[in-house]
Amino acid sequence: MLKEWVKEDRPLDEELSARLETARAELAKRQMAIKDKKLPVLVVLDGWGAAGKGSVLGRVIKNLDPRFFKCETLTQATSEETRRPFLYRYFVRIPQEGKISFFDGSWMGEVTGAYLHGKIKKKEYKSHLTSIKRFERQLNDNGYLVVKFFFHIDENEQKKRLDALSDDPNTKWRVTSKDKWQNKHYEKCMDVYDSYIEATNQFVCPWYFIDSTSKKWAELQMTEILVASIDTALAGADAKQKAPLLQNTFPLKSIPKLAEIPLDKTLTEEEYRTELDRLQKRLGELHNELYHKKIPVIIAYEGWDAAGKGGNIKRIAAALDPRGYEVHPIASPEPAEKSRHYLWRFWNRLPKDGHIAIFDRTWYGRVMVERLEGFCSENDWQRAYNEINEFEKELADWNAVIIKFWVQIDKDTQLARFTDRQNTPEKQWKITDEDWRNREKWDLYEEAVDEMLAKTNTKFAPWHVLESNDKKYARIKALKVVIKAIEKKLAED
Amino acid sequence: MLKEWVKEDRPLDEELSARLETARAELAKRQMAIKDKKLPVLVVLDGWGAAGKGSVLGRVIKNLDPRFFKCETLTQATSEETRRPFLYRYFVRIPQEGKISFFDGSWMGEVTGAYLHGKIKKKEYKSHLTSIKRFERQLNDNGYLVVKFFFHIDENEQKKRLDALSDDPNTKWRVTSKDKWQNKHYEKCMDVYDSYIEATNQFVCPWYFIDSTSKKWAELQMTEILVASIDTALAGADAKQKAPLLQNTFPLKSIPKLAEIPLDKTLTEEEYRTELDRLQKRLGELHNELYHKKIPVIIAYEGWDAAGKGGNIKRIAAALDPRGYEVHPIASPEPAEKSRHYLWRFWNRLPKDGHIAIFDRTWYGRVMVERLEGFCSENDWQRAYNEINEFEKELADWNAVIIKFWVQIDKDTQLARFTDRQNTPEKQWKITDEDWRNREKWDLYEEAVDEMLAKTNTKFAPWHVLESNDKKYARIKALKVVIKAIEKKLAED
Repeated sequence: MLKEWVKEDRPLDEELSARLETARAELAKRQMAIKDKKLPVLVVLDGWGAAGKGSVLGRVIKNLDPRFFKCETLTQATSEETRRPFLYRYFVRIPQEGKISFFDGSWMGEVTGAYLHGKIKKKEYKSHLTSIKRFERQLNDNGYLVVKFFFHIDENEQKKRLDALSDDPNTKWRVTSKDKWQNKHYEKCMDVYDSYIEATNQFVCPWYFIDSTSKKWAELQMTEILVASIDTALAGADAKQKAPLLQNTFPLKSIPKLAEIPLDKTLTEEEYRTELDRLQKRLGELHNELYHKKIPVIIAYEGWDAAGKGGNIKRIAAALDPRGYEVHPIASPEPAEKSRHYLWRFWNRLPKDGHIAIFDRTWYGRVMVERLEGFCSENDWQRAYNEINEFEKELADWNAVIIKFWVQIDKDTQLARFTDRQNTPEKQWKITDEDWRNREKWDLYEEAVDEMLAKTNTKFAPWHVLESNDKKYARIKALKVVIKAIEKKLAED
Repeated sequence: MLKEWVKEDRPLDEELSARLETARAELAKRQMAIKDKKLPVLVVLDGWGAAGKGSVLGRVIKNLDPRFFKCETLTQATSEETRRPFLYRYFVRIPQEGKISFFDGSWMGEVTGAYLHGKIKKKEYKSHLTSIKRFERQLNDNGYLVVKFFFHIDENEQKKRLDALSDDPNTKWRVTSKDKWQNKHYEKCMDVYDSYIEATNQFVCPWYFIDSTSKKWAELQMTEILVASIDTALAGADAKQKAPLLQNTFPLKSIPKLAEIPLDKTLTEEEYRTELDRLQKRLGELHNELYHKKIPVIIAYEGWDAAGKGGNIKRIAAALDPRGYEVHPIASPEPAEKSRHYLWRFWNRLPKDGHIAIFDRTWYGRVMVERLEGFCSENDWQRAYNEINEFEKELADWNAVIIKFWVQIDKDTQLARFTDRQNTPEKQWKITDEDWRNREKWDLYEEAVDEMLAKTNTKFAPWHVLESNDKKYARIKALKVVIKAIEKKLAED
């Protein structure tokens, strides 16, 4: 694609200046439209070293109100970032509704660079391409406008610029060894960039090449494309376009419906004590091993109100080194969270490798409470099964152990526990009017949960039902599941 | 202090077990009280290497609900953190109301370690001690309970433990070179720790020593002290205790009252264009130098509604490299922000060294809108002048350039601009009912602003009034002030 690209002729100076004046004014106007329509816009700048991305970006934003945009330099990952999935540092920086983020450098530079310099093999490179396509498509489907620019100059022009920069003592520092390497291996880089662009040139998020031989001309191209892209996105938002529901392509395991699960399993106090001690000791040992092998663990808890999630989590946590895990209670999203992709707040809470994150309620809120209370559209929650599978696939590719618990009780048991909470002063904080309201919707929830379990029970991130009419039984089962999953991962490693 | 400390006798086993059982139950109960009363609790664990901080902490939290506490390991700063003021990584981790944070390792370990290993000189060490005392006092005054523990073992016991750990291949990795160094220089370390503890043993935030010869005994001491400390803090909160208003000890410069400032300064369009070009070019050059010398810059904007802050900021931003600055529009705090120290959200937005942060409205909201609208108590905003001076002193000590602008217009000019906004469709988004309501309180605001300017016009972080009846004049003045402040800092460096 890039190789065959035929550049548009640069307009004559007078025309260029006139068009630029118009384009700048138009882009400035679009800011207000973006704000009004709550459109989040992500603009990504990639390209050859010394193509002038930074200075063209500097020109483009000069006409924008700095309260509505943000520039992020994403050339080098920090050590904290490299301990997370590779998309982490991009996902946590996505803009909120009504704002523009400009990324100077992106996932393209990161993965093509790693591949070109032999830091990742073909297989991992391909897998990253798949992840990137999913990431960009998910942003689009969730209402983001993503505009990707590649700043292009040819081999000779690059050499000329790098030489000029190197010769001047004031600008010498700007020429990195990677820039030099790139110019020396221009053809090889071109091959990789070209095939990367081909692979990621999706309809929902196409590439735009910028002829970067002159700054003013590059600014004009970028500004005009931005204006047109914003207009298209706003028109789509007005038309309330729906995103297609993709067919599932992840390996699913079958799982029984909630109604089919017997809840009569119990443990005696003595069995419980003995098992608890033994299993917590074992989990403590495994935690140590995980830490050394830098394997991350994600434990997700969902379940009925009063099913016993809190007490169950406590028994897992009690076995762990406090410095190596974190429990995230998930309530309704805060404004900064609500105005971004719904998975943003979970990406933000991912553990470092070697650490454990326990989620008390999770991203599955999208297909339960958000679905049933109408907090998102039907298209939104229907898409979410696949989006969530994709999210968990990223975690799996990052070598995480992923354990998802559904804590199950029957309706009578819930009533008994609610009543007990109501009647016991120390427990009253645990019961709210909302709990009673949710209880009235039990059947609707059960239907949603059955659908959720069926559609997201992937091999790499399976669900485990904890029969919790007897809380002791559920706690011991949870410990066993966690231990088994970790042992399995450690054996593979 | 630590040197002369006389340990309490360890109780006999039976008594110890009985007391421990009671203490654990009491602490578990306190969680709910903390939640109900919205008390934020910060527990800090320091002490000798191999004193068993981690495992005692593990025991203490076993009885707590993991949704209400968090453990943070703070032994090593990341590279991103070392580019911020030294208290940054602690401040951004303070708990929110109703939650407990346990810090395994703290600012004590960091500064005494740096001093002992010769990484900072006596002068810097002393200055850090002052910062730490202010930090701890501010937390207390803003409703935090801070409990500091020092886990103590003697030289022989430490040696015995380190040897035992080193001899076992499974635990060998846990013995760091710093631990060995500490044992080899036990006396020297003791001297530094002792004087550190003496210096930071404030009434509002005293030290507690833990005899760490046995884990169970250490757990009991820690748990009992926590329970007692929480009870004291809750009683104080109930009594609505006020914190003392400290006398100002920072060097203040005099500043005229708003009413005394002539607003008739203007520029012609031609003067404006010529100056704007020249000054923006100069600021661009300076930005480059700042980046290389790793000097951070904080620019704070306050001013009347419609005074022209936005346009002013735009002219500063337009001169800067987009990769090196960020504009932070400050609105009312989100829930996670409101439930922490009011400066938390500003600490979170501090730039990296070499970068520029521009705040569109600032921490001065505490002594303006929060004061006038009753969003905080009188004691809160009266204390804030000193707290803010202390905050800015931290920034100054970190070698930041700090520039604070008050954008000034008269009442008639505001009315003309409001009316223009109301009558111009593209500008209507800029004017709200709240703006009109604030305008009615002009005199009260003017009084508050005069007090604020007088009390926070420190030499290290001075205010600059921008006469903005003529916006062009104000923009040129702002550029000149910023350039002068940066040039001054670069000349010192």
